[in-house]
Amino acid sequence: MTEDLLTHDEQLEHLVDGGDGEGCSALLESLDAPDAVHAVSSLGEDGRARLLTLLDPETAADVVEQMPWPQAVTAVSMLDVTAAAAIVNELPSDKRADMIGALDEDAAAAIVAELAHEDAADVRRLTGYAGDVAGGLMVTEYLEYSVSATIGEVIADLGENAERYADYEIQYGYVTDESGQLVGVLRMRDLLLSPRSRAVRAVMIPSPESVLDTSPLAELVTFFDDHGYFGVPVVDSAGRLCGVVRRSAIEAAVAEDRDGVYRRSQGIVGGEELRSMPILVRSRRRLSWLSVNIVLNIFAASIIAMHQDTLEAVIALAVFLPIISDMSGCSGNQAVAVSMRELTLGVIRPREIGRAVLGELSMGLLNGFVLGLLIGLVALAWKGNPALGLVVGGALMLNTLIAVLVGGSVPLLLKRLGFDPALAAGPILTTVTDMCGFMLVLTFASLALPALTG
Amino acid sequence: MTEDLLTHDEQLEHLVDGGDGEGCSALLESLDAPDAVHAVSSLGEDGRARLLTLLDPETAADVVEQMPWPQAVTAVSMLDVTAAAAIVNELPSDKRADMIGALDEDAAAAIVAELAHEDAADVRRLTGYAGDVAGGLMVTEYLEYSVSATIGEVIADLGENAERYADYEIQYGYVTDESGQLVGVLRMRDLLLSPRSRAVRAVMIPSPESVLDTSPLAELVTFFDDHGYFGVPVVDSAGRLCGVVRRSAIEAAVAEDRDGVYRRSQGIVGGEELRSMPILVRSRRRLSWLSVNIVLNIFAASIIAMHQDTLEAVIALAVFLPIISDMSGCSGNQAVAVSMRELTLGVIRPREIGRAVLGELSMGLLNGFVLGLLIGLVALAWKGNPALGLVVGGALMLNTLIAVLVGGSVPLLLKRLGFDPALAAGPILTTVTDMCGFMLVLTFASLALPALTG
Repeated sequence: MTEDLLTHDEQLEHLVDGGDGEGCSALLESLDAPDAVHAVSSLGEDGRARLLTLLDPETAADVVEQMPWPQAVTAVSMLDVTAAAAIVNELPSDKRADMIGALDEDAAAAIVAELAHEDAADVRRLTGYAGDVAGGLMVTEYLEYSVSATIGEVIADLGENAERYADYEIQYGYVTDESGQLVGVLRMRDLLLSPRSRAVRAVMIPSPESVLDTSPLAELVTFFDDHGYFGVPVVDSAGRLCGVVRRSAIEAAVAEDRDGVYRRSQGIVGGEELRSMPILVRSRRRLSWLSVNIVLNIFAASIIAMHQDTLEAVIALAVFLPIISDMSGCSGNQAVAVSMRELTLGVIRPREIGRAVLGELSMGLLNGFVLGLLIGLVALAWKGNPALGLVVGGALMLNTLIAVLVGGSVPLLLKRLGFDPALAAGPILTTVTDMCGFMLVLTFASLALPALTG
Repeated sequence: MTEDLLTHDEQLEHLVDGGDGEGCSALLESLDAPDAVHAVSSLGEDGRARLLTLLDPETAADVVEQMPWPQAVTAVSMLDVTAAAAIVNELPSDKRADMIGALDEDAAAAIVAELAHEDAADVRRLTGYAGDVAGGLMVTEYLEYSVSATIGEVIADLGENAERYADYEIQYGYVTDESGQLVGVLRMRDLLLSPRSRAVRAVMIPSPESVLDTSPLAELVTFFDDHGYFGVPVVDSAGRLCGVVRRSAIEAAVAEDRDGVYRRSQGIVGGEELRSMPILVRSRRRLSWLSVNIVLNIFAASIIAMHQDTLEAVIALAVFLPIISDMSGCSGNQAVAVSMRELTLGVIRPREIGRAVLGELSMGLLNGFVLGLLIGLVALAWKGNPALGLVVGGALMLNTLIAVLVGGSVPLLLKRLGFDPALAAGPILTTVTDMCGFMLVLTFASLALPALTG
């Protein structure tokens, strides 16, 4: 069996089993990011941890950066402290702090103790920030110069540290005074046009824009919307420079955020789920969402239980109850999605519920009419009873209107009350529309009972 | 009534009504991006078009860039050709091409005819690209130098055009030969350390990484995963430099893509919907999704219709049918979301359906057991009939297993067949789980009929 006949996944597995670190390095180096991620992910939990021990720390850190985050955390947590610290040490400052923050407390402390003094202090500072504020999104790899330096000194520094700065974004250097306060920004291209004996102070742009380390993601999005910059310096409450947030980091955080909205709307709660995670953790998290839903469902279905006599008289209604429940859910969820989008774009504010209601009113009348007519005709065609068509069609008509009005307003209301609309809008919507839908069908039916049974 | 008592929205409306362009400029300038977006959006369609005519073209272009895209396109399409062209001319190259591409053909041609020759050629070239390939995501604002130039000439150019380059990312300059082929990349910081008489050829990094103008978004994501760069040059099939794709543009495109996944999963199809769009367009798009769903729903409910006699005998079952339908949908959608996430992260491939099924098998058994037990106990408690509990609980147990297996595999299958999983997974899932769920409950019930009615 030659290596060529094996998939990348199998090749990596062989190399890990054989303890061939150099082979692993060479293979991973040769693969595109998606193939590498897939091969590493296919190794399983123990294989991933073993792989990290076989690689040199720098390569291992690259692999950790590429892996899905829950896998990376688990793998690092399985290593001994020295090996883990060596890898964590090679991560960029933001990822390093994220990793330390994700490990359990004892492991984190042990790893931090192994780091160089300055790095350890950095990590302690960064792990103090939430992941969605400037402090948690910034990197500490940036160029910092003293306001009293000369252009010549800056250029000399750039030359001497070219290798270390290779991964830095060096469009700008940041200028601080003796207390560490940000006082200016130095455009690197201005260096080109300045005599080397000139002071940084004379060339820098004074009083630059900055953001506070505690600024939330939404504020950073606004900042980058307002400014064309590729990065912004981050200062603490005393005005001291503590990092740089890059535009691409904000865009990436927004992408993750949007992905989270989708997942939570589908009932994936309590954080990301990968099938490589322990089944009991996965099951418990999914059940925490399902158990709320089943209670709400039983609650809604109790409406049907209360109208059993009507249902007994017109058993055909039982066919339409799930249709009305599901279709109203569909209509309502469309309105939820539009409100979520308008909130994201900022064209609607959480308190402007009237505006959402107005925007859904004609929609509900129009789509309710079309859907109600359709289902009414189906009912008529099936049983040849116009009263059944009227009851079922009328109920869906009215309930579609209710669904879009509720769907349009619930995300705004939840947002206003500080709840997560992605998580809660769906269950609330379906409970309300189920209850109203069942009630409408069965009430209409009990009113029209003679015509239905006649 | 003083201006202070008015909201920003009302102030802007007053200024637009009064034709006060300078006032509008000043107000918008003073507002944060979200407040500005909200105020502009509140103006309504005619107000937004009028606002653009009142502002100078540069400010108008900034406003167009901030507005939600459908609003921007509508507003520009309402302007006369000269006004529209002046604004389009001030947009950055990527947005300019997007706008021209979004307008109807005649308007677009008229506007392009008003642009400067070079810009018009640029636009024609850029609009030829789809929005999700490198050509559609790149900007044409970049530094390009001839391989035969000297460092001194580059520095002189930077100095002379400092203002024009203000919005450029100038960490790198791109070096081309006489035929326009990309032959090197010039790190701007290397300029600092090179004698001015030196040739660009001697300082540049030769044979730089680049992407093809036809590279799709997924490939660009991979590229930036593999490389730490902030931008990458884009070349055509002949190797000629035609633009630069920035990392932040890719991250932003990914964020939009994720948002689209959420919206399509909730039934917002045919592109973005804002409530400011015409009601008939909005209604038609939503109905296109709802009509598919209602047909599938009727199809699924026909299972109930075929078992009317069983239902007639045990009317209590009608209460549980919507619960089983909804809960199976919830369980299945969780599995859909996990498969979507694993596809995004690259830990699973579309053909690895077996892996998804395996990952959901124990989940389905576990959660099915819990949910089935729960609903079974509720049924037992309600009617005091153990057979009813067994029928309903057993059906939900089994159907939960079916739901997670279908939910886990359908996104992979759709992806493999080239369909959009976000759009199609939901309806397919609920149709299958509804049919199976109804069938299970009613078949179990007909088998246990003596015990249920006894």
